[in-house]
Amino acid sequence: MTIIVKKFGGTSVGDVDRIKNVAKRVKIAVDKGHSVAVVVSAMSGVTNQLVGYCREAAMLHDAREYDAIVAAGEQITSGLLSIALQELGVSARSFLGWQVPIRTNNVHGAARIEEIDPDAILECFAEGRVAVVAGFQGIGPDGRITTLGRGGSDTSAVALAAALKAERCDIYTDVDGVYTTDPRIVPKARKMNMVTYEEMLEMASLGAKVLQTRSVALAMRHKVRTQVLSSFEDLPGTLVVDEDEIVENQVVSGIAFSKGEAKVTMVGVPDVPGRMAAVFRPLAKESINVDMIVQTSSDDGTTTDVTFTVGSDDMNRAISVLRASKETLEYDHLAYDDNVVKVSIVGVGMRSHTGVAQTMFDTLAEKGINIQVISTSEIKVSVLIDAEYTELAVRALHTAYGLDAED
Amino acid sequence: MTIIVKKFGGTSVGDVDRIKNVAKRVKIAVDKGHSVAVVVSAMSGVTNQLVGYCREAAMLHDAREYDAIVAAGEQITSGLLSIALQELGVSARSFLGWQVPIRTNNVHGAARIEEIDPDAILECFAEGRVAVVAGFQGIGPDGRITTLGRGGSDTSAVALAAALKAERCDIYTDVDGVYTTDPRIVPKARKMNMVTYEEMLEMASLGAKVLQTRSVALAMRHKVRTQVLSSFEDLPGTLVVDEDEIVENQVVSGIAFSKGEAKVTMVGVPDVPGRMAAVFRPLAKESINVDMIVQTSSDDGTTTDVTFTVGSDDMNRAISVLRASKETLEYDHLAYDDNVVKVSIVGVGMRSHTGVAQTMFDTLAEKGINIQVISTSEIKVSVLIDAEYTELAVRALHTAYGLDAED
Repeated sequence: MTIIVKKFGGTSVGDVDRIKNVAKRVKIAVDKGHSVAVVVSAMSGVTNQLVGYCREAAMLHDAREYDAIVAAGEQITSGLLSIALQELGVSARSFLGWQVPIRTNNVHGAARIEEIDPDAILECFAEGRVAVVAGFQGIGPDGRITTLGRGGSDTSAVALAAALKAERCDIYTDVDGVYTTDPRIVPKARKMNMVTYEEMLEMASLGAKVLQTRSVALAMRHKVRTQVLSSFEDLPGTLVVDEDEIVENQVVSGIAFSKGEAKVTMVGVPDVPGRMAAVFRPLAKESINVDMIVQTSSDDGTTTDVTFTVGSDDMNRAISVLRASKETLEYDHLAYDDNVVKVSIVGVGMRSHTGVAQTMFDTLAEKGINIQVISTSEIKVSVLIDAEYTELAVRALHTAYGLDAED
Repeated sequence: MTIIVKKFGGTSVGDVDRIKNVAKRVKIAVDKGHSVAVVVSAMSGVTNQLVGYCREAAMLHDAREYDAIVAAGEQITSGLLSIALQELGVSARSFLGWQVPIRTNNVHGAARIEEIDPDAILECFAEGRVAVVAGFQGIGPDGRITTLGRGGSDTSAVALAAALKAERCDIYTDVDGVYTTDPRIVPKARKMNMVTYEEMLEMASLGAKVLQTRSVALAMRHKVRTQVLSSFEDLPGTLVVDEDEIVENQVVSGIAFSKGEAKVTMVGVPDVPGRMAAVFRPLAKESINVDMIVQTSSDDGTTTDVTFTVGSDDMNRAISVLRASKETLEYDHLAYDDNVVKVSIVGVGMRSHTGVAQTMFDTLAEKGINIQVISTSEIKVSVLIDAEYTELAVRALHTAYGLDAED
């Protein structure tokens, strides 16, 4: 008995007709003899409406009541999909978070799944039925409904697949898979058949918004084979798997880029111990997320320049915070620029190949693109460049690493 | 500590502004030091929308899924009212049916409450909080959500009041109480301060649509003092209580009438044992509810005429059923008329007074109104008359029994 978990998002279940279409897709898997659990989001628009009611009732509202209210959205979809499946002759029943149960901690509005008891769902399979599970929700230690935060249905699906030891977790989205880079910028971008968890994780956090970072991390931890595929076309998508499953890795699997970055440089900071910690402490206190950091010393070694990046939404706040600390930090002045983009090459093959970063630097140099900041991880090299070169850089790198689709 | 249960229907919680108004009404009771449980319906229109989705998914749908879907309506209201109360500084939390728990049988879509565990709500009171309970829903023996059927929120409220041994159950409606008769027909109709369960039960089943018959029966069984009052005005309503609470009963408390009746007469039925059972068996089989029945013998004693009433919606079906059995029943012919009305006088005082029915007959005779069928119970006399005399009869009886309001 092969267990498959399938997850359909808000657009895929946007109205009753679409829910009926989802039922047809599920039936195909059932007809193949699979045991299927389906995780559903709220019908698109419903969550926003319910959140709107909460805000209308009180701008600051009890997160526990918020959870009870918005969880109604997925509750409705799970019942409707069960009915639609039954109408096709497929035996099915709905499960709410508390009925599975999907146990979470008590951080209402952004709960973390702690344990899923697979017994009720496995019993449902044993009776030859499809289990339709309301995504995004669970039950807290106090017996009250919790929600996992926006995008939590992906996490519900992956966690359920792990608990059920499912063969695969299929995430249906409005794109048909994961691409080597954004096809809107590089027409020769290819859909990948497979990608490793680590690569997907880097790409997700770098702006490829196909899967929530959180669900990829969960899939990696529990080695859940996760497929990203289209809700609207019946085509294989991209399988996110463990490195072992991929026989020969590409050195670089994909090129990611992330706009909405801003660069801040603090010029002339006295080069004394503890000064760097002092620079970043007030930013952390204000929950400003700092990404890339580089430090360069002046010629005489008495002062340094520190450059870091933050989300462009946070740039003004970051500058205010640093200005308020000018006397303590004793820097000379601040420079900043939000007209920058972070371009990254990602690939697990980097670990066993040398000269990968060099190819990136050479390629950008050939095109006359200046690199402002560099940061690297084991499977990624990121550079900050002027935003106007985004397309040029991404296309050139895509070609340089041999990712272009053949005609 | 006085416990009060308050129930607000769909119109009273029709939008977030109205929910905020309900919160204000609840706060008044809390400020008096009462422990308050509030039972809420779905926002008006929401249940119909959810039922519409179910029908769109499949005309014949699983009642268990239907229950999970429509229960979302009350779930949303209970969370929103809790938020609105908190916004007024009143500590409150929502309870869904399964959280109380309100245990029901497994008749999905029309479940009966079997047991309510009061502990969680009493604990909530002990913490100084208002309990906001989603009406209309419970949990079945299989751990799935059940609903009590339309109007079930009144039943939820009365059952909860019984379980909590509440001082009173306040049912807020769009009328301000129970009247001696319909004020649209009799301008001199008076709002009653008190009415007995038995009288309310007769009036509810006779067409005074203030309270569901089912919730009155439950209130009577558990002696729950139930008040019917207006959602929109801050005035005392009508208290439905045990007979012992009313020091001096009116002989007749109210005049009820019910349109939508039809009379069927089967003429010339052989007067042999078992024939009456044979007449009503096919009607029962078709779930046709027969109300009043009279039988009159012919002069020679060989045949009888049987007259009975059914709902006017059922008249044509009743006639078809009886026509199909003509050979077995051996009657001569059928006569029928749906232009009739049932007028009833109701009052527990009848038990200890004689001549009450006589006043009714005399009053109708004076106005030249012919009585077609009579039926009586311990606290009620009903007559079937021609529909065109409805207003005349109700007004005359209202005066004859001394019910008219003083100017």
